[in-house]
Amino acid sequence: MNFIDRFKGIVPPVATPYHADGSVDTLSLKRLIRHLLDGGVHGLFLLGSTSECVLLDAKDRGRVLETALAEVNGKVPVVAGVMDAATDVCLNHARLAKSLGVDGLVVTAPYYTRTNQAETIDHFRYMHGEIGLPVVAYDIPVCVNIKLLRDTVHNLAREGLICGLKDSSGDEGGFRMLIRDFKDKPHFRLFTGSEIVADTAILSGASGCVPGLANVDPHAYVRLYDAAARGDAVAARREQERLIDLFQMVFWSGSELSPGAAGVGSFKVALKHKGIFEHGHMRRPNRPIPDAVQARIKEHLMSLGLS
Amino acid sequence: MNFIDRFKGIVPPVATPYHADGSVDTLSLKRLIRHLLDGGVHGLFLLGSTSECVLLDAKDRGRVLETALAEVNGKVPVVAGVMDAATDVCLNHARLAKSLGVDGLVVTAPYYTRTNQAETIDHFRYMHGEIGLPVVAYDIPVCVNIKLLRDTVHNLAREGLICGLKDSSGDEGGFRMLIRDFKDKPHFRLFTGSEIVADTAILSGASGCVPGLANVDPHAYVRLYDAAARGDAVAARREQERLIDLFQMVFWSGSELSPGAAGVGSFKVALKHKGIFEHGHMRRPNRPIPDAVQARIKEHLMSLGLS
Amino acid sequence: MNFIDRFKGIVPPVATPYHADGSVDTLSLKRLIRHLLDGGVHGLFLLGSTSECVLLDAKDRGRVLETALAEVNGKVPVVAGVMDAATDVCLNHARLAKSLGVDGLVVTAPYYTRTNQAETIDHFRYMHGEIGLPVVAYDIPVCVNIKLLRDTVHNLAREGLICGLKDSSGDEGGFRMLIRDFKDKPHFRLFTGSEIVADTAILSGASGCVPGLANVDPHAYVRLYDAAARGDAVAARREQERLIDLFQMVFWSGSELSPGAAGVGSFKVALKHKGIFEHGHMRRPNRPIPDAVQARIKEHLMSLGLS
Amino acid sequence: MNFIDRFKGIVPPVATPYHADGSVDTLSLKRLIRHLLDGGVHGLFLLGSTSECVLLDAKDRGRVLETALAEVNGKVPVVAGVMDAATDVCLNHARLAKSLGVDGLVVTAPYYTRTNQAETIDHFRYMHGEIGLPVVAYDIPVCVNIKLLRDTVHNLAREGLICGLKDSSGDEGGFRMLIRDFKDKPHFRLFTGSEIVADTAILSGASGCVPGLANVDPHAYVRLYDAAARGDAVAARREQERLIDLFQMVFWSGSELSPGAAGVGSFKVALKHKGIFEHGHMRRPNRPIPDAVQARIKEHLMSLGLS
Repeated sequence: MNFIDRFKGIVPPVATPYHADGSVDTLSLKRLIRHLLDGGVHGLFLLGSTSECVLLDAKDRGRVLETALAEVNGKVPVVAGVMDAATDVCLNHARLAKSLGVDGLVVTAPYYTRTNQAETIDHFRYMHGEIGLPVVAYDIPVCVNIKLLRDTVHNLAREGLICGLKDSSGDEGGFRMLIRDFKDKPHFRLFTGSEIVADTAILSGASGCVPGLANVDPHAYVRLYDAAARGDAVAARREQERLIDLFQMVFWSGSELSPGAAGVGSFKVALKHKGIFEHGHMRRPNRPIPDAVQARIKEHLMSLGLS
Repeated sequence: MNFIDRFKGIVPPVATPYHADGSVDTLSLKRLIRHLLDGGVHGLFLLGSTSECVLLDAKDRGRVLETALAEVNGKVPVVAGVMDAATDVCLNHARLAKSLGVDGLVVTAPYYTRTNQAETIDHFRYMHGEIGLPVVAYDIPVCVNIKLLRDTVHNLAREGLICGLKDSSGDEGGFRMLIRDFKDKPHFRLFTGSEIVADTAILSGASGCVPGLANVDPHAYVRLYDAAARGDAVAARREQERLIDLFQMVFWSGSELSPGAAGVGSFKVALKHKGIFEHGHMRRPNRPIPDAVQARIKEHLMSLGLS
Repeated sequence: MNFIDRFKGIVPPVATPYHADGSVDTLSLKRLIRHLLDGGVHGLFLLGSTSECVLLDAKDRGRVLETALAEVNGKVPVVAGVMDAATDVCLNHARLAKSLGVDGLVVTAPYYTRTNQAETIDHFRYMHGEIGLPVVAYDIPVCVNIKLLRDTVHNLAREGLICGLKDSSGDEGGFRMLIRDFKDKPHFRLFTGSEIVADTAILSGASGCVPGLANVDPHAYVRLYDAAARGDAVAARREQERLIDLFQMVFWSGSELSPGAAGVGSFKVALKHKGIFEHGHMRRPNRPIPDAVQARIKEHLMSLGLS
Repeated sequence: MNFIDRFKGIVPPVATPYHADGSVDTLSLKRLIRHLLDGGVHGLFLLGSTSECVLLDAKDRGRVLETALAEVNGKVPVVAGVMDAATDVCLNHARLAKSLGVDGLVVTAPYYTRTNQAETIDHFRYMHGEIGLPVVAYDIPVCVNIKLLRDTVHNLAREGLICGLKDSSGDEGGFRMLIRDFKDKPHFRLFTGSEIVADTAILSGASGCVPGLANVDPHAYVRLYDAAARGDAVAARREQERLIDLFQMVFWSGSELSPGAAGVGSFKVALKHKGIFEHGHMRRPNRPIPDAVQARIKEHLMSLGLS
């Protein structure tokens, strides 16, 4: 079965564990991969925002990919994030990822440079022309400061530059419009990046979901996906609501951490409490989750039967 | 005379020339440095936005610094931009820049990660603690998606983490407020990044200006600064208005290029027409300035006596 | 049965028809009301954005309310929009609406004035204290420039100032969070204002939907609601997808009209083609839908069996 | 001398005083007008944002205009703000203002409706065609949510729809560009709305300034204007810096009030302390300035020799 046939369902963005000194903790990473595979996930997204991708240099990115790919060993498709301000740096990241054996790439618009839609299409054109791996466009305007417009997604697909989209734009209406537009192209993969409307995205026809929270509870997201995919809205909603409850921990750090750090940080603290990660901290400038919140997360996991 | 005493006036962000294959063109870069020094500039800012800093990898950044520092040879202070999504990557860039002999650093908030004000202050704290060079904060919210708030600038200054600010926020009112706030701290350097309100910024008490357009006409910016610094508002305005006319070329590419690319691209095309750069193109994803606009820029320079 | 028990399901924001001279066309308005009641809608929202509320003076607002209330004659609950920059003007509008017999009010944050969350809560407090009708908060940041934060909604509900929320913020994730938060308060009414994710909003637990497009095809939205309310996700999705197809007409005016005008204008042109409205134009500054688009809408309605 | 010849210099947006019950306090308003005329202001802007225009109904607006026009008695030109979401409501406001004898109108883009640039030009076209008074465009995107683009200002001027612009956009660079563009049209009036960069705006060629703070200290703004207009940058800056110090009171209410309310509210409290206004409160939803801040403002005025 080729990549695109297999590439759907729950594809968690894999968090990156560190040793106390900040270096990549490959043992913990392997435990996480096994945890996710045990959970039944359908694919893995390495080096995404949840992986703190932009906080990792080329060597670290390589180590994450090697470790994860070895552990996965072909059981599920693996895609790697390629995000940087510069096209040429992205191409280097992509070449590395390709050489290590990933199945596809997940590519954002360049950031910092304030590229427009046309320049962004160029960026995907270079990626397609010089790498040749399947590319999923990653729409995350809060980070890169440009929204992939509906027309842009159409142009990218029509030209064969992308095989799908991961939508982390928060614009669920626009995402629904894309599901409509690509109805007759069932192999164009449309993933939501939302943890909290995964059930309805899949019920509406999305190919799957890329939820950071699946690091903590992959089993539940897989049950959610299975229910939604077979049209059982009630069962899907039940799983979703429990996961929304679980998700509340990302708000507990208040204004002390930025929203992105509070999200990823909470997931990593939960993974530590579950015995999967040795440490729960992030790379700088992200602050650690406050101790009181860490303790509260521990109770939260217990109360939800997750530790 | 120490760094901060010398660090004021016109400090152009130096554009980066490339060979046809995209590698850094050190010969053209040296010509540009000599052109700027001949123009009488008071300092140089390497690896800023106008340098396409984020499109350069560590090796290229090193080459730019080495080439420029050798050519400058201590005649004026040289500061280097340090900008990345990751604190640790920034620290690496900073260590390189320090080892090569720059006099100070220009540091933005981390981008992509959506850091808040507190995390941004942490970032500057790490930079100060681990590098020890003078740091100028670089406020450029259109690129990094966070504004350095007035309070944040005060906190950074009070803690001794920064020696000044380069303001490219477009918020001239806020900048005027900072000039007021630091009136009794004449060694805190406040630079405007605006090409078009440089005269009034300096008349209001700013320490200087970091205008990308000074790559093209450093002499005029130095005349502007000298006039404004001695309180001659009329002469400063005359220079400024001529420079605003020159600046119009950045709008001629219309929507084909993003604003940032249209700006830097126009400056580079002008430098090519002036015989300083061999080539005028930028790194990807930036598109080249359209041929018709390139021709128009040539005439523009002639009509303003600049070729 | 009291208001809140009846107030759920499909509650269209009723479009306002005009004579050629721009005055309110009460005959067409009555036809629209009958059309909506025939469609089985569960309530009516007068003087919302789709009604061009802010383009109507007090006299026109009164005429719309009187006409509609007479035609409805108690068959379904009727709520009236109260939106202005000034609290006191809003109170006047509210008094008029109350005196004419509406069942409840739909209140936005004041606009133009850039009120903060606390001042916005004050605004609702005045409305509650001086009018006494049930109030639905209307979250429409693209128009009023302030988002009703999750905490603000909680505060408003806790203090008893509102009985529900109409969400036109486009933030479906945030709306889902509110559905979770008010799970144990089944009488707190949560309506989505989205035409295109109505099915999933209701499947997720929303009380209903306030879709402008229901002016054109109320029957379909009622079928959608009934299906979603009984948990039939497949049938609900089928209706939704047909309605999304119908909705495409709002994009056909391109950049000639602003998005809001293009939406409301398309609905009114469709109502004209259906013989319900005499004229399809809007109040100034909204431009009329271009003739070519009007013709295309006619064909569109026929192809979807709607004329 | 006709309107446009006289219409330049310091044109304060006149604050609106209320009795304790919230009705317009015409006696205090007259005192303020005399205070401003005594200060030597060159014109008056009634019913602007500082007047809480959008919080006043038609009757109140009429009363403000009548009272002020009677007191001014032709000594200086008087312009009236015309701002509403609806073109037709704006036309009514404009007709009233014309009938009462104002010399010109100040017109924003419609708000709430999210008009685009073309619809905004239409709005000015209606105003010009149906009223016939000179119109100053008022660019205040934080309130109306649309920026008057450089091209739009050119189009409005070329078509003869406006005689000038009041810039409250905060985009001083863009304003400087307009000064350049209209250099050869000295009768096109370009006013800055900024309290804090008035000196440099006038030194750069602006026609004048519309500073809310001039309600409190008109004499200083007139001195500033005179100095800047005769090219005395040093004297203009001295006045400006004192006024910037005075202006700091707008920040003292912190997050309790929205920025607009904190600004206008501070000016009104100062006018009360100066014995010009009977009361210092604003219309709802604006909160009163906290008591502690009111006391601090009193000391502030004394320390600056203003009470």
